[in-house]
Amino acid sequence: MSIHKGVKVTNEQVYQLDREYVFHSWSTQGQLNPMVIAGAKGCKLWDYQGHEYLDFSSQLVNVNIGYQHPKVVEAIRAQASELVTIAPAMANRARGEAAKRIIAHAPKGFKKVFFANAGADSNENAIRMARVFTGRSKILSGYRSYHGNTGSAIVATGDPRRIPNEYATGHVHFFQPYLYRSEFHSETEEQECERALAHLRRVIELEGPEAIAGLLLETIPGTAGILMPPAGYLKGVQEICNEFGIVMILDEVMAGFGRTGEWFALDGFDVTPDLITFAKGVNAGYVPAGGVIISEKISDFFNDHYFPGGLTYSGHPLAMAAIVATIDAMEEEKVVENAAMIGQEVIAPQLADLQKKHAMIGEVRGKGVFWAVELVGDPDKQTPLDADTMVAIKAGLIDKGMLPFVAGNRIHIVPPCVVTAEEVHLGMDYIDQVLTKYAI
Amino acid sequence: MSIHKGVKVTNEQVYQLDREYVFHSWSTQGQLNPMVIAGAKGCKLWDYQGHEYLDFSSQLVNVNIGYQHPKVVEAIRAQASELVTIAPAMANRARGEAAKRIIAHAPKGFKKVFFANAGADSNENAIRMARVFTGRSKILSGYRSYHGNTGSAIVATGDPRRIPNEYATGHVHFFQPYLYRSEFHSETEEQECERALAHLRRVIELEGPEAIAGLLLETIPGTAGILMPPAGYLKGVQEICNEFGIVMILDEVMAGFGRTGEWFALDGFDVTPDLITFAKGVNAGYVPAGGVIISEKISDFFNDHYFPGGLTYSGHPLAMAAIVATIDAMEEEKVVENAAMIGQEVIAPQLADLQKKHAMIGEVRGKGVFWAVELVGDPDKQTPLDADTMVAIKAGLIDKGMLPFVAGNRIHIVPPCVVTAEEVHLGMDYIDQVLTKYAI
Repeated sequence: MSIHKGVKVTNEQVYQLDREYVFHSWSTQGQLNPMVIAGAKGCKLWDYQGHEYLDFSSQLVNVNIGYQHPKVVEAIRAQASELVTIAPAMANRARGEAAKRIIAHAPKGFKKVFFANAGADSNENAIRMARVFTGRSKILSGYRSYHGNTGSAIVATGDPRRIPNEYATGHVHFFQPYLYRSEFHSETEEQECERALAHLRRVIELEGPEAIAGLLLETIPGTAGILMPPAGYLKGVQEICNEFGIVMILDEVMAGFGRTGEWFALDGFDVTPDLITFAKGVNAGYVPAGGVIISEKISDFFNDHYFPGGLTYSGHPLAMAAIVATIDAMEEEKVVENAAMIGQEVIAPQLADLQKKHAMIGEVRGKGVFWAVELVGDPDKQTPLDADTMVAIKAGLIDKGMLPFVAGNRIHIVPPCVVTAEEVHLGMDYIDQVLTKYAI
Repeated sequence: MSIHKGVKVTNEQVYQLDREYVFHSWSTQGQLNPMVIAGAKGCKLWDYQGHEYLDFSSQLVNVNIGYQHPKVVEAIRAQASELVTIAPAMANRARGEAAKRIIAHAPKGFKKVFFANAGADSNENAIRMARVFTGRSKILSGYRSYHGNTGSAIVATGDPRRIPNEYATGHVHFFQPYLYRSEFHSETEEQECERALAHLRRVIELEGPEAIAGLLLETIPGTAGILMPPAGYLKGVQEICNEFGIVMILDEVMAGFGRTGEWFALDGFDVTPDLITFAKGVNAGYVPAGGVIISEKISDFFNDHYFPGGLTYSGHPLAMAAIVATIDAMEEEKVVENAAMIGQEVIAPQLADLQKKHAMIGEVRGKGVFWAVELVGDPDKQTPLDADTMVAIKAGLIDKGMLPFVAGNRIHIVPPCVVTAEEVHLGMDYIDQVLTKYAI
């Protein structure tokens, strides 16, 4: 009995099934009211009653190539028919082709790919590589970060989701640059950069450089607020890591694969890390996958040192086929170029207009299709807009027919990388209307 | 450019692609010689030159329903065309249907399913639930165990892969029953059971029951040697957990979904845990998936308590469609019944014959399609067979045309649950020939 044979399905049925049997992430189960989604295409989703939603979220900022891309769907269907699963110990064609394509877009000097199931276990394995490579144990990461939900990844995470989950040792957090809410009392980007680097150096000195295996950093912290690092910051971090023999890991799980209008967000900065982690956009989340891109130095080290990590679905053929098709389609259809153009020519000017109009917009920042709109209750004091109003704004946007990404006091503008100028106009108009309604 | 359009592919090409770009699990990269697999069907695999292999491994003991099951492949293809990905916060039909089917096969009193990507993060989240539910921190688990590779899962793991990865806190290990190599100097199963329970009680008393959140145990430890627990052991563990308010988690990642000739290995014992973790067999690994099956008591608790865990691909529709189709096909085609019959009527008597013939077989144990053949260098002292001979035996089996599962000094007999009597005969004959060649 297939669930795909033209049975009439209703929102109510699917909702009831969910509430009866499905336990949800990051929630109090009794307070859930999940939206029902029946189908999707490009940047649009709909339910079983035909209500449509314009996607300004890319789900969890992963559907970079848009919904139901025909070439990626077809590649998954073809791989399913050819060889749906095989263990990581085997040599598999889709896996080799996926790794080759990822390396082709990685910075010069990156050699191999270790595949994982998603972002969290990609960071877990990058941390493991740093610890084995250096023989040291501590991992530095930023307070304003999210690195995933498994044991080490959640403790590397800086955001408050870390706090009930702190069971791994050797994790130390530092403050990153964020001029709008500076921890360093800075007044310019240049000052913020300089002071953030001095702070990082002090933390390293006081934690003991000889104890620190790795430094894990989102190139552009995403869920924490799409915090654009000031010019020179990442290069400065790299120099400090080099000076102290610390493995530099850039987390490109959310920022990578087109999101910023480059293949990797790090392409926009003068920086070369030792390891890069990825997931989400690499195949738009069509099949769970992530991984670690490994520099020559670390790749060579493991030629004659044992790597003590692995997983059943490392390099799963179905996920790999989706990666191959996603990267090929993104190249052929210039999806990354579209994200860059949309950011520069459409989102940036529209957000500048919105900011002029709405006093509650404290700051806008971002690039490509990776933007944050920070809302404040008091523009002078920059007080974050209260949670109740944020809830109302989110509900208002959904009501207009948009799927927004709301985090803290921010609306993140993170549509699929294939979004058109018209779709951006429409979404911005929804935001304009809802902000007008709740104007301070 | 699709990789699935009739291009001529060779073993050599795929091997080179792998060696150039793919970083492998649990290995020294310079010492690898991965086998190339082009396709598979049922219990057979083949390479691009037409060499065939009989699968006695189910890859990593996950392909329970066999390779390329047409109904599961078709369900993946259909779901890919309908809605390939959606975030966990949404209500999705495939996810609800999958959870419903899992609950239908779980013990009475289990209510909801939290989905993860694989076994490791399923155990991570079960551990998290136990810690939040009890407000305690320590996790007990067995030395003879494997629970996965992420931060907390690898420290919960008891086998030596834990040692280079110990960065999570609050994990305590105890000895499990294993009469053939008893830690308790027992002479009978009954004595081993009684002494193992007394040992567990002592560990709990000395670690402090009020500090222990959960006890994590593979129902039948798999990679550690398919260690059948003596009658009464699991019930005894449950009674101890209940007495001290410890959440009992049974890990059915490898043993569940047909492997033992039951839907869950725990069905073969008089035991009801608080949480059950699963992955692998639930959809034969066709799409990465795992999860936690949650008892009413713990499910109710989280109705008004926040659950601080989650992941982007929780309940991924493609994985869920594969679960629905796998469970439906296993029911319709009586796959679980086949595994039980094969174990009882084919594997058990054949292994008994082999044991009579080969002095190097120290012990055979298991049920269903989940068996270990323990090889010894000295039958009297029960010395594990040396590593070099084990490597030669493994190579000999591959050379015959079998894909074996070799762990330590053991051959695990773990074919897909759909294996036929004829296929088992063939595989046992290969084993017989190779053991004869290396007879002690």
